[in-house]
Amino acid sequence: MPPSLKMDFATEFKRHVARVERGLDQFVPPATTRPVRLHTAMRYSLEAGGKRLRPVLVLATAELFGIKDESALPAAVAIECVHTYSLIHDDLPCMDNDDLRRGRPTVHKQFDEATALLAGDALLTHAFALLSENYASELSRALTQELADAAGSRRLIGGQMEDLLAEKKADATPDELEFIHLNKTAAMIEAALVMGGLIGGANEDAINTLRRAGRHLGLAFQIIDDILDATADTATLGKTAGKDAKAGKTTFVKLHGVEASRRFAGEHSTAARAALDELPGDHSFHAALVATMAVRST
Amino acid sequence: MPPSLKMDFATEFKRHVARVERGLDQFVPPATTRPVRLHTAMRYSLEAGGKRLRPVLVLATAELFGIKDESALPAAVAIECVHTYSLIHDDLPCMDNDDLRRGRPTVHKQFDEATALLAGDALLTHAFALLSENYASELSRALTQELADAAGSRRLIGGQMEDLLAEKKADATPDELEFIHLNKTAAMIEAALVMGGLIGGANEDAINTLRRAGRHLGLAFQIIDDILDATADTATLGKTAGKDAKAGKTTFVKLHGVEASRRFAGEHSTAARAALDELPGDHSFHAALVATMAVRST
Repeated sequence: MPPSLKMDFATEFKRHVARVERGLDQFVPPATTRPVRLHTAMRYSLEAGGKRLRPVLVLATAELFGIKDESALPAAVAIECVHTYSLIHDDLPCMDNDDLRRGRPTVHKQFDEATALLAGDALLTHAFALLSENYASELSRALTQELADAAGSRRLIGGQMEDLLAEKKADATPDELEFIHLNKTAAMIEAALVMGGLIGGANEDAINTLRRAGRHLGLAFQIIDDILDATADTATLGKTAGKDAKAGKTTFVKLHGVEASRRFAGEHSTAARAALDELPGDHSFHAALVATMAVRST
Repeated sequence: MPPSLKMDFATEFKRHVARVERGLDQFVPPATTRPVRLHTAMRYSLEAGGKRLRPVLVLATAELFGIKDESALPAAVAIECVHTYSLIHDDLPCMDNDDLRRGRPTVHKQFDEATALLAGDALLTHAFALLSENYASELSRALTQELADAAGSRRLIGGQMEDLLAEKKADATPDELEFIHLNKTAAMIEAALVMGGLIGGANEDAINTLRRAGRHLGLAFQIIDDILDATADTATLGKTAGKDAKAGKTTFVKLHGVEASRRFAGEHSTAARAALDELPGDHSFHAALVATMAVRST
């Protein structure tokens, strides 16, 4: 990627992130709302930062389809609420039992387990409240259907369940690992692109193309994450490296090796890029996102 | 209540419950859906039975407004999914830590904590999927808004949070107890009546009346539950009596005594009945429900 494009991409990404941060403040009840402890915990988890990849994809995709105002913001906040709830519940002692997330105590460490459980429940519920309150009927219905499906028992939650079951065994099969990646990671990235497209009034063909681009982007993202965990050092990564191997977790790298994983990631990046090329409008932001991810893994 | 009306009511209630049971089977993914363990747990919890009060109220209220077919069924199933999710999460060790629910092992006892957590998450998410898949746009949006609000951080989950905080103190204040009852119990009963009315095409006035009836019905229901826990024996109750007092829990009876509680329950029953009397159509089922509840507490 030429340096100028790279800089443009970084600037654009930051611009979208700033919008997301404002949206989170605007569309989530203030911490002073009764019960204060619950709303404080909801905000604590949302304010922990993170890449904001999913909400940025909602905003950038809506923009690709001509949305110039902030009408995609409630949906962007909704998808970040769902992503954050899934992290809070994933960190609980009965799941991954993590004490730290993005360098800060996890919600159950900072508050307690019950508060973390309820804050997660509340963020998930709030996502659907946002979609029902901020969009005209047909768009609201379509966004709700997309998000509920992506976050549901066959996709996000199903992926978490299989991930958990796989961890208890010696090794996940390639089929199980594919199910986990497709549903635990790719489903919400797919939903982000599709929700942006729905808000932008994309037609059925374009929605299908966005779904395909999202699936490949999500799979590339997850495989690259596995490669980085196996190859990068903790300083480069900004989080503990080698965590997957230490946890005996089945990853793409463990099943297929680093070389083949790089090849698979490259193939998914190329397929995501090809799908994006079918879309109308200037998709240089999306293309740069794919390219930036691919560069990280080499 | 005359014996004939009582029998009619019991027959009607059973008829609605049978519809709910069929609806649960029809509108929740089969246990054979991947991941099987997750869907088995979802069905296990839904099939545990219970009174089905909330979904029955959705169906009966839609009928009151002229709905003759099964179009209220997906919404009835959705509200039972939300109620069941709240029970699964409430039973977890970090919350009430209950081993038994309706005479059967709780979900985390029958499966494990992680499965129970995810099954609850999945039922909550599924409720919104059902509302988005089975109703025309504007009705879908209105039902989603009603359910998300009733189940949200200011109401159902807020009520659970304050309940939990109150349990840690010596005593809840009357204000805290009112917040808990209004939100942990009454919110979902209110939503059941309102959702039934929305499906039946009730106008804004009627919706407000249903909301008022639901609030009083919910408060009467909760106070009567407190009275029964304090006065009935385990055999009559079908669950362990005196559980609240043993847990040091602040109840209406603990704060106000049995006599005043009976008076409050009576006042709320009368107010619920008065609101129902403002509605058009034959509301004898709803009236009998209020009367049946009031009789149980004396």
